[in-house]
Amino acid sequence: MPPTPPPRQLHLNAFLMNAGHHDAAWRHPSTSPERVTDPAYFQELARTAERGLLDSVFLADGLALWGDVRYNALGGFEPLTLLAALATATRHIGLIATVSTTFNEPYPTARAFASLDHLSGGRAGWNIVTSGSADEARNFGRDEHLEHGLRYERAREFVDVAVKLWDSWDDDAIVLDRAAGVYADPDKVRPIDHRGTHFRVRGPLNVPRSPQGRPLLVQAGSSEDGKEFAARHAEAVFTAQQTLSGARAFAADLRARLARYGRAQDAVRILPGICPVIGSTEAEARALERELTELQVPEYGLAQLSGMLGTDLTGLPLDGPLPDLPDERDINGNRSRFALVADLGRREGLTLRELIARLGGGRGHRVVAGTPEQIADELQEWFTRGAADGFNIMPPHLPRGLDHFVDQVVPVLQARGLFRTEYAGHTLREHYGLARPAARAHEPLAV
Amino acid sequence: MPPTPPPRQLHLNAFLMNAGHHDAAWRHPSTSPERVTDPAYFQELARTAERGLLDSVFLADGLALWGDVRYNALGGFEPLTLLAALATATRHIGLIATVSTTFNEPYPTARAFASLDHLSGGRAGWNIVTSGSADEARNFGRDEHLEHGLRYERAREFVDVAVKLWDSWDDDAIVLDRAAGVYADPDKVRPIDHRGTHFRVRGPLNVPRSPQGRPLLVQAGSSEDGKEFAARHAEAVFTAQQTLSGARAFAADLRARLARYGRAQDAVRILPGICPVIGSTEAEARALERELTELQVPEYGLAQLSGMLGTDLTGLPLDGPLPDLPDERDINGNRSRFALVADLGRREGLTLRELIARLGGGRGHRVVAGTPEQIADELQEWFTRGAADGFNIMPPHLPRGLDHFVDQVVPVLQARGLFRTEYAGHTLREHYGLARPAARAHEPLAV
Repeated sequence: MPPTPPPRQLHLNAFLMNAGHHDAAWRHPSTSPERVTDPAYFQELARTAERGLLDSVFLADGLALWGDVRYNALGGFEPLTLLAALATATRHIGLIATVSTTFNEPYPTARAFASLDHLSGGRAGWNIVTSGSADEARNFGRDEHLEHGLRYERAREFVDVAVKLWDSWDDDAIVLDRAAGVYADPDKVRPIDHRGTHFRVRGPLNVPRSPQGRPLLVQAGSSEDGKEFAARHAEAVFTAQQTLSGARAFAADLRARLARYGRAQDAVRILPGICPVIGSTEAEARALERELTELQVPEYGLAQLSGMLGTDLTGLPLDGPLPDLPDERDINGNRSRFALVADLGRREGLTLRELIARLGGGRGHRVVAGTPEQIADELQEWFTRGAADGFNIMPPHLPRGLDHFVDQVVPVLQARGLFRTEYAGHTLREHYGLARPAARAHEPLAV
Repeated sequence: MPPTPPPRQLHLNAFLMNAGHHDAAWRHPSTSPERVTDPAYFQELARTAERGLLDSVFLADGLALWGDVRYNALGGFEPLTLLAALATATRHIGLIATVSTTFNEPYPTARAFASLDHLSGGRAGWNIVTSGSADEARNFGRDEHLEHGLRYERAREFVDVAVKLWDSWDDDAIVLDRAAGVYADPDKVRPIDHRGTHFRVRGPLNVPRSPQGRPLLVQAGSSEDGKEFAARHAEAVFTAQQTLSGARAFAADLRARLARYGRAQDAVRILPGICPVIGSTEAEARALERELTELQVPEYGLAQLSGMLGTDLTGLPLDGPLPDLPDERDINGNRSRFALVADLGRREGLTLRELIARLGGGRGHRVVAGTPEQIADELQEWFTRGAADGFNIMPPHLPRGLDHFVDQVVPVLQARGLFRTEYAGHTLREHYGLARPAARAHEPLAV
């Protein structure tokens, strides 16, 4: 008889952000906003996530000051350097950094991720973003942001070049023959000679092939362009989903696109974000949710909402309805987030104040308040009904929200056989159950 | 009576490179070339340097594969990520990363250094280079390298922008008033609105002001353009100097340029590189030097020499003289290194083989073989005679060459009162005796 395959289990990332994901987290008495530029703070959080056997620590990023600094705590660590520092403070957990393809070049980006993969013994992941704001463009010599479709065109070629660079060294290129004076076999280190529309890159990379071969490729946009990009390149997809039916439709849509690129149905892990507000009773969880909502600064919420909706809401009555909104096709920022927020507001007929409260915990990601068992029930339902392979866990307040998830929710999931009880592998790819890609020579292609 | 000023003391950096600075180091039986992609190897080296109370660990860098991979060990860690990992493994020592102004953008570069400065508690330094090779240009969409003068023009504006970005947050911008809901004072976080020839950057930076205010600014080119750039921006200058008289002339020239930029004579630390080949007797040191020379692969040396001289030397007899060389003004790579090597070969009438042997240890930096006392004598003479404020220590082989320097040379320098016996400060600027710059609003300037 063939061996029984291991049961399918959840993949869980700790999505870390400053004092927590709730936009008022820094005002909560349990948080430490004075520590958001202290590396020890993030080391402690990463060790907590590792104690919970989570797959990875994930850091979002942008290349401009987000929102109004008056109202929200900002650490601002650059993700690759912070994760390099966390690599030496942890042993098992994956380390996923967000880096933009719009405002970087493929050679140093591929190199930095190869470096992080070596530094961490094969735990690096790259969350590939095309960046969403004109504020970022204005830090790079442009008045307006590059058009949405063009950003994704550049992103596709950017990742193609990065893959070629990671594959420019064979695994066995290093010979290390001291007696003969031969360090590496030059036939196993190849120029890539890429000549495309956006990039010309000769290669090879100036770092030997890293433990995972390539970092894990992650993608987080859910627009049409984003889904097509994910189907082509992504091994894990982060997504914001408010409803089970919406998440199932998203997952089915994404999986259906994989075949077009010759990829298997299970080549991608789909991981919605979720902000778990945990209490020892449901009433306690609801009280925490209310407490955080009451700490929100409405001006900040309105400014954030204006950004997500591409519409200036300043001066509108907080207890009034959403105004008319632009068409999704006219949004040049984060297009899928626009659609999600507009839909949420309209579907439930929310006032601006109610919408700000709903978005406070997860900026569009789903917020679930309840006991550890209730949170586990939610995760299990989405997981078993084809809406998710796992989740990006977005604690509303830190460190407490992560402590509670690790100490209270993870054991419930383990008891149900839904989550690992020890790390079985060493690399992030192994945690995700994904194969290590083989290095290969790439044909020079016209792109 | 006014207090006696502390005696002037040496500043010493550990310049780390793969298996060591000698191009045959990886073939020496004491080295560990199989560990050059192992972060623990660099952590051990950094801890050794810290045990020796050195000012900093310094990493060179380039954005292309250097030389022929057949003949030399290559780690290839990206410096900012490696130093971030070393930041958490050390407590005192400075961390200086090389980053090019030709192939990067000011916003993410300023941000990454601010991040490293936070991660290390104020120990970050930036070795600013304009990059020297066409191989690097070919990884960034160009066939040829940007012209030397234009590279420095871009570098000047790049650093101006970075300084404005670091100064875009006041030290006391973060208010952290939980009750009032005010995290930061928006009047103390300023856009920079830079509009220059090469860059338009709006700012502010998306990370609060770091412990040192700005990272220490280091520069390593010694051409005319390089010296002028150093006089304007640099707080430490790395330089390759073969002779005491040459080094004194360089130091005097550089100091004379400082006044032009309103800077004091002691605003810069001048640090020549030196490769110390240490033996318990002079004969033992000479034997080690010979041993390393005998391990050199002549083809590799000839290729390296061809690169430094901008001249293809392939096929020339190793025991013959240098051929005619181009004029320095026609060199578009590392111009000062060309001049140094050409001068060394001509002045001493060296054959190609002899020149390759002389360059093996330090690629143009001075090599000194002797006992710990003899090495200390050399450092002391240069230091007291106005040729150096300290040195970049380039061990020929690692880890042994660094161990011997720390355990045998440092105590001699300490006994002579020439080097610290404990870290007096916490930041790299404090180790170097340099002030922390104040944040200030910069006038928008036409550049």
